[in-house]
Amino acid sequence: MIFWRCPRCGFKEGFWEGYFWRCPGCGSPLEIDYSPRYAVGSGRGFSRYSTTLPFTPERSRGEGSTPLVIERFDGRDVLFKLEYLNPSGSFKDRGTSLAIYYAYRMGFRDVVEDTSGNTGISVALYSRLYNLSARIFMPRTAPEGKKRIVRLLGAEVIETPTRSDAASKVLEYVDKSYYVAHTWNPLYIIGASTIVYELYEDYGAPEAIIAPIGSGGLFLGLVRGFELLYKQGMISRMPRIIGVQGYSSQPVFKALRGYEVSGEDSYLADGIMVQNPPRLMEIVDVLRRYEGDVVLVGNSEIIEAQKDLLSLGFVVEPTSAVVWACYKKIRDRLDARSVLIPLTGSGLKI
Amino acid sequence: MIFWRCPRCGFKEGFWEGYFWRCPGCGSPLEIDYSPRYAVGSGRGFSRYSTTLPFTPERSRGEGSTPLVIERFDGRDVLFKLEYLNPSGSFKDRGTSLAIYYAYRMGFRDVVEDTSGNTGISVALYSRLYNLSARIFMPRTAPEGKKRIVRLLGAEVIETPTRSDAASKVLEYVDKSYYVAHTWNPLYIIGASTIVYELYEDYGAPEAIIAPIGSGGLFLGLVRGFELLYKQGMISRMPRIIGVQGYSSQPVFKALRGYEVSGEDSYLADGIMVQNPPRLMEIVDVLRRYEGDVVLVGNSEIIEAQKDLLSLGFVVEPTSAVVWACYKKIRDRLDARSVLIPLTGSGLKI
Repeated sequence: MIFWRCPRCGFKEGFWEGYFWRCPGCGSPLEIDYSPRYAVGSGRGFSRYSTTLPFTPERSRGEGSTPLVIERFDGRDVLFKLEYLNPSGSFKDRGTSLAIYYAYRMGFRDVVEDTSGNTGISVALYSRLYNLSARIFMPRTAPEGKKRIVRLLGAEVIETPTRSDAASKVLEYVDKSYYVAHTWNPLYIIGASTIVYELYEDYGAPEAIIAPIGSGGLFLGLVRGFELLYKQGMISRMPRIIGVQGYSSQPVFKALRGYEVSGEDSYLADGIMVQNPPRLMEIVDVLRRYEGDVVLVGNSEIIEAQKDLLSLGFVVEPTSAVVWACYKKIRDRLDARSVLIPLTGSGLKI
Repeated sequence: MIFWRCPRCGFKEGFWEGYFWRCPGCGSPLEIDYSPRYAVGSGRGFSRYSTTLPFTPERSRGEGSTPLVIERFDGRDVLFKLEYLNPSGSFKDRGTSLAIYYAYRMGFRDVVEDTSGNTGISVALYSRLYNLSARIFMPRTAPEGKKRIVRLLGAEVIETPTRSDAASKVLEYVDKSYYVAHTWNPLYIIGASTIVYELYEDYGAPEAIIAPIGSGGLFLGLVRGFELLYKQGMISRMPRIIGVQGYSSQPVFKALRGYEVSGEDSYLADGIMVQNPPRLMEIVDVLRRYEGDVVLVGNSEIIEAQKDLLSLGFVVEPTSAVVWACYKKIRDRLDARSVLIPLTGSGLKI
């Protein structure tokens, strides 16, 4: 049996009985209660790691099983995981493919979502695949190219003045439609965890990971994956965990350290400009538990890092470059012989 | 030993002794003379099928091992090969990764190429990876998004009035630089043949293939792959071979049938608008040998086909849709229980 479960107030309900984008009791983010187990199946993508998932989507568009490129820098293995080669151009496809298949199975006919961009493209793609209609709420400032692709995929784009207006406007629809709610939805964390299983099969466990933190789906997913491997005795210790935020949006840094650090603007990393991540305390708990840290970066570092990545042959968008900007800042003091650098979003769009 | 070889005049020279973008004797397209053998190695991409190649590049950016999506239509397996999920967004990366690595090994410092778009992005990416400078000659009419990405990757874009001006202008540089010459270069055919080995490993041999024909690199590569499997006794007969061209550019159709058919314009398929493919006779020979055919499509069919593919969750550009437009035209009379549909270029750019 699979359940929705609230770790805060104890709410519990059958996973296939009803959908809750947050706890109906206390408003907290929910978990999915099931028994994941790491094992390598056959094929590629989700079907290969289906025992780690609460369910496996019927249809695939090639999400997952992304390339791993290993380069030697500073005497260590730098493990670039090319998440931008997912079908809609970002790692979001891992979570979306689960979330939209669930909506389809639950009988929803239309979905709504608020997003700064990449999730919108991803939701539009999978909604179309399962023949659901999609309404995407995006800030007017989102890149035109991203809006264009969302529309090309048959979804409706509703522009709002700001990112937070999108988040409040979408709430008018959550009673009638499936609200994807990727910043809340545990399926995005579970989806992202499959990155770890692929990495483990292709390479083994890295000694450190660097992950961008916006709403924390990727960050929490990576940690979840390593925790499962640790629990099963596949790895003997957790990797060092380093999160990255921008100076303009440092809620996790602030909650962890108790203060803010001023620095240059970081709006180029639009994908991680999340001021109030619903899972803030969960992220901070993880960082405390594993003695992780958060590094802040700004626009000029992001621009330089994107140039570096392009010159290495990685066609990524600016947000994707924050992990490399972070690596450059800490490379001399990073005590690890191997480090995972996930490259999250394609530079072909925009 | 590996040689350059001219099938027309008999010219032969060591492959690592010098580079020839065409036969220095008679001007024909060259072949590479070596002993390919199909076998499945380890890892992904080119390292997995290295015995089929004349050499294996040192560096990879995740080219190859693209997802295969199988859908049932009209009582048959339709095998979508997602070539648009290659690192620069098109199947060209398979050939380019070989061609640019060869240039690097041969000591060239700069490369030149003429292209309508996708090859330019691909050449810019791999040139950067091996630290070679790249000059890309493109028609002014090429999509702005493609030019932008070429520049972002550090290559110089030189715009010409038309595609054929690009082809003649580039010839001023071929004595000093490595001329990639993807419409001539046999490495592009060899690169494309790896699609077949992946398909064979993932699924087996299809009964039919539908391939776009511009300069014919993909078309000839697919045929080459199946020929190798046939020669080694892995398959008992060749698949039915169907090529696709646009009404506005039908040199292969004309050479095969002896006449042209007028129809609507097909400029939306800019990637296959090649009026004088250097390997025209080779393509026609293949079609005659295997009793293949060429189907012509026009803009309105391309637009509809692209819409279909988007609604199936495939984010492809218009040129990529010609294969689906062709399938729709022949689906009722196609005598095959399985058909390969390669989806060549990403719709994220543009």
